[in-house]
Amino acid sequence: MSPSRRQALVSEIGEFQLIQALAGGFSTLGPRPLIGMGDDAAILANPASAHLVISTDLLVEDIHFSKHTSSFYDIGYKAAVANLSDIAAMGATPTYILVAVALPSHMKFGDWKDMYRGLSVPCKAHGVQLVGGDTSASRSSLFLAITILGEVEPGHALTRGGAEEGDIIYVSGSLGNSAAGLACLTHQPSCGKVSTLRQPMKFLVNRHLRPTPRIALGRLLSSRRLASAALDLSDGLSGDIAHLCQQSRVGALILEASLPMSPHLLTYTSQVNVDPLPWALHGGEEYELVFTVSPKKQHRLELAVKQLQVSVTAIGVITSRRSGLQITHQDGRTQKLVPQSYVHF
Amino acid sequence: MSPSRRQALVSEIGEFQLIQALAGGFSTLGPRPLIGMGDDAAILANPASAHLVISTDLLVEDIHFSKHTSSFYDIGYKAAVANLSDIAAMGATPTYILVAVALPSHMKFGDWKDMYRGLSVPCKAHGVQLVGGDTSASRSSLFLAITILGEVEPGHALTRGGAEEGDIIYVSGSLGNSAAGLACLTHQPSCGKVSTLRQPMKFLVNRHLRPTPRIALGRLLSSRRLASAALDLSDGLSGDIAHLCQQSRVGALILEASLPMSPHLLTYTSQVNVDPLPWALHGGEEYELVFTVSPKKQHRLELAVKQLQVSVTAIGVITSRRSGLQITHQDGRTQKLVPQSYVHF
Repeated sequence: MSPSRRQALVSEIGEFQLIQALAGGFSTLGPRPLIGMGDDAAILANPASAHLVISTDLLVEDIHFSKHTSSFYDIGYKAAVANLSDIAAMGATPTYILVAVALPSHMKFGDWKDMYRGLSVPCKAHGVQLVGGDTSASRSSLFLAITILGEVEPGHALTRGGAEEGDIIYVSGSLGNSAAGLACLTHQPSCGKVSTLRQPMKFLVNRHLRPTPRIALGRLLSSRRLASAALDLSDGLSGDIAHLCQQSRVGALILEASLPMSPHLLTYTSQVNVDPLPWALHGGEEYELVFTVSPKKQHRLELAVKQLQVSVTAIGVITSRRSGLQITHQDGRTQKLVPQSYVHF
Repeated sequence: MSPSRRQALVSEIGEFQLIQALAGGFSTLGPRPLIGMGDDAAILANPASAHLVISTDLLVEDIHFSKHTSSFYDIGYKAAVANLSDIAAMGATPTYILVAVALPSHMKFGDWKDMYRGLSVPCKAHGVQLVGGDTSASRSSLFLAITILGEVEPGHALTRGGAEEGDIIYVSGSLGNSAAGLACLTHQPSCGKVSTLRQPMKFLVNRHLRPTPRIALGRLLSSRRLASAALDLSDGLSGDIAHLCQQSRVGALILEASLPMSPHLLTYTSQVNVDPLPWALHGGEEYELVFTVSPKKQHRLELAVKQLQVSVTAIGVITSRRSGLQITHQDGRTQKLVPQSYVHF
């Protein structure tokens, strides 16, 4: 007797059928490949007037995600956002995606479809087409390797290397929500059913599982040349600002009193009697943008972002390389800020 | 006491240092990225006159390779060739590569460097630059996900979909060597030390561990529009021709007597009393090109390939879709040819 389709395993479906099952799941808006899935490689016609932006990201079970705190849909969704966010951080428009997955043979076909549905939803929302991939068995865990492409006007891309002394440091949205959401999920597994949660946990868990790639903000900053440097918050504010300082050969002073925190984060942390500051400073996977703006452009920036659905907050200033990374606390003391990025090893 | 650097593990080195260790290992010839490693994404200026070709390939320990039959250098080398071969099969010039790896924490830093050296050698030989990547821990096996880019004149790319009834089917090099080399390695682990082997095993093991991406042949076929369709032999001749037939909606008749086999393969198979035909028909990882040529262009093709270091052999003809995939044996019998591609699940 053949296994019921509902309980079918990926190992019973076969690679070709798995790939066929994807057809149509991704965007049909946006640019289209000349040749997509099914040949030795995809063929893309890039507009002559744009530069190509490309990034690759690896997600490994029990390192980047856990099936205890994420559904397969969640895993796919966040994998897509992590990649879209890299394109947002360059100020580019995302265009195409390639997805390589190694699947444990005991993985259910339905779970695989859920993961691809999770991947496709944020891609579709941003007009991103799936143009290639590879599917393999894994003797152990689930692995996803995603490559994303985008395009940007020549000379407009936001790099990490352009910040100058005196530039204002901005961050989009609010800080610490994702780390707080993960803490909710880890300590209270019932949080997985987000729909049954009450605020503020619902908001925090949702920010952890459904982060927003700040594509429109990145495009605004690059197309109008408003930012001197940018990157996205994947490792955590302290670690990511350290990356920016290193590439730009500058220092940075962060003002604790200016760090934007959501009312939900403040309510939750006061309920559970936890200091929200470490989450805001070091929590990873926020996918907000950190960017620097010359004081001359600050007024133009603040006017321009009013048209967006996301707020931006000035949280500090770029200093000399010699000053390193510092934080001024609420009590006025200024100290060295030691990056505490999450390390995957 | 800190561990001696010679015995250091990747888990003791850290992601940033691992990535730093790559700098300079890859080509400095060929096109250069505007921004390479170290930002949220790489920025590439593609020539306006070319189409972009892109492909992604996943290599998983104990599925695609085994540490019993491959050194870390071998694993890297073949991963690069598998990707370069996809670009060759499109008739494109390879340009850039991105490498995502998940490393078991017990992997030695020296092994990691060997793997990257193996990756870089064929890339350098073809002017391919490393422009991005991601490094993660793995709780279990070693995973590599490689994305390769190339460029080709608009309208010149070799797809799988252009073969027409009456076209001649060609293959480059000779068939069955890689599968025979793998058999040597699997049955006689001492084969791993290729330098100590005698011919013909040395040749066969070398074809398995150091395949050649047929970039120059692919470029000749595409730039002069000599081929109607092409793909590279990764799954095996029978399975790969079936892919070509499916995409082109045609059938194919293969002549057994025409299949090119190396003297080394014939000597080895007669020594060990094995039929070489199944290896020639179904053996994977050859990375030779299979391509179809209109009879009108056959003379031009055969003249043109004389300038290359690789031979090509006519092995059959494209037939109607209705006829399916057939083989005419040496005794004159024509039978259905059942693809026997390697399945990774």
